[in-house]
Amino acid sequence: MTAIIDPDDPWSGTAAGPRRILVAALAAFADRGYHGASTRDIAAAAGMSPAAVYAHHRTKADLLFAISAAGHRHVLAVCERAPAAETTPIARVRSLVHDYAAWHARHHLLARVVQYELRSLLPEHRAVVVELRSRTEELFREEVRAGVDAGVFHTTDADETTLAILSLGIDVSRWYTPGGTRTPVGIGRTHAELALTLLGTDHPASPPS
Amino acid sequence: MTAIIDPDDPWSGTAAGPRRILVAALAAFADRGYHGASTRDIAAAAGMSPAAVYAHHRTKADLLFAISAAGHRHVLAVCERAPAAETTPIARVRSLVHDYAAWHARHHLLARVVQYELRSLLPEHRAVVVELRSRTEELFREEVRAGVDAGVFHTTDADETTLAILSLGIDVSRWYTPGGTRTPVGIGRTHAELALTLLGTDHPASPPS
Repeated sequence: MTAIIDPDDPWSGTAAGPRRILVAALAAFADRGYHGASTRDIAAAAGMSPAAVYAHHRTKADLLFAISAAGHRHVLAVCERAPAAETTPIARVRSLVHDYAAWHARHHLLARVVQYELRSLLPEHRAVVVELRSRTEELFREEVRAGVDAGVFHTTDADETTLAILSLGIDVSRWYTPGGTRTPVGIGRTHAELALTLLGTDHPASPPS
Repeated sequence: MTAIIDPDDPWSGTAAGPRRILVAALAAFADRGYHGASTRDIAAAAGMSPAAVYAHHRTKADLLFAISAAGHRHVLAVCERAPAAETTPIARVRSLVHDYAAWHARHHLLARVVQYELRSLLPEHRAVVVELRSRTEELFREEVRAGVDAGVFHTTDADETTLAILSLGIDVSRWYTPGGTRTPVGIGRTHAELALTLLGTDHPASPPS
């Protein structure tokens, strides 16, 4: 979980065969939903037999968990790294919000499964994922708290504001379409500005460094 | 579409039998996704034969369209009515955002189908629904524009801010759980305050009238 991550590749370190299964399953879940995608379709899309898929993931539920956990770990790692190079609360929040929103655009199919298939996970799988989610949320809470404590954020309700910032980022995966007028980086910049406005700071309207 | 609507009942005016089908289909689509729900399951949940369901809706696609269109018309009607009793830009936006966010909590299953099954609609159905969506969005744009023109909103990007306000409301249907600590009215109030903060107005922090 603290491994070096590739911000562009949620499957880094995964061998070619298993990766092909994950990518095919992700596409199927994002397109038809977990309950609408069959293991047989996934195997066909991966160019494998169902037996080859079952050799890696005993059930469709295991496959969903593998994808959801990898996605949750990836966005957590991206968020852990985002503010590291910054020192002021405004720059740190800007970088964190930027990378979180951009992740939901850049990896919008994975983000959809991460964000909209929570209820489809088995309870024991959901427990693992919920723990990863709360660590990501806590990163945002800490940065907001630091800014409030430093007197640079003037929000009257830090918790609600933090949830709203996360909510805006998550919703990107619903509407984002690659190749449209809005790019992941552009969305990241917009969200960073929206977050600073919500936090009540008179920030200079410059892009993240 | 300009008919009198019941804000609590998206199916008002629908007879008991057809209503039972719509409610059963909505529950199935919200729970398992459009592609994961079968017409047979829906008929069983409605206490009917598949033939009885087909007598009302020839295909599952027709059923999705009936639900999506009814939901889109309902939220549009709620939004058309929301600001009508208010005269100032701040009070009008507060009322509009309040009712939009509260709708996504109160009717969270319907909202999920409305917001997350757009891609599952047939193209000719999607066209109808997209037109209803753009009318709802236009209501928000008009109110924001009126406040900017009146000099009470100080947002530097009215379009992005409007999309963010809509986005926050939509995302309620993802996380809202009935019986939790957050109520539709409480969520409505919070969203109204968040929207006014995003719009850059020094509003008095009072609940909507």
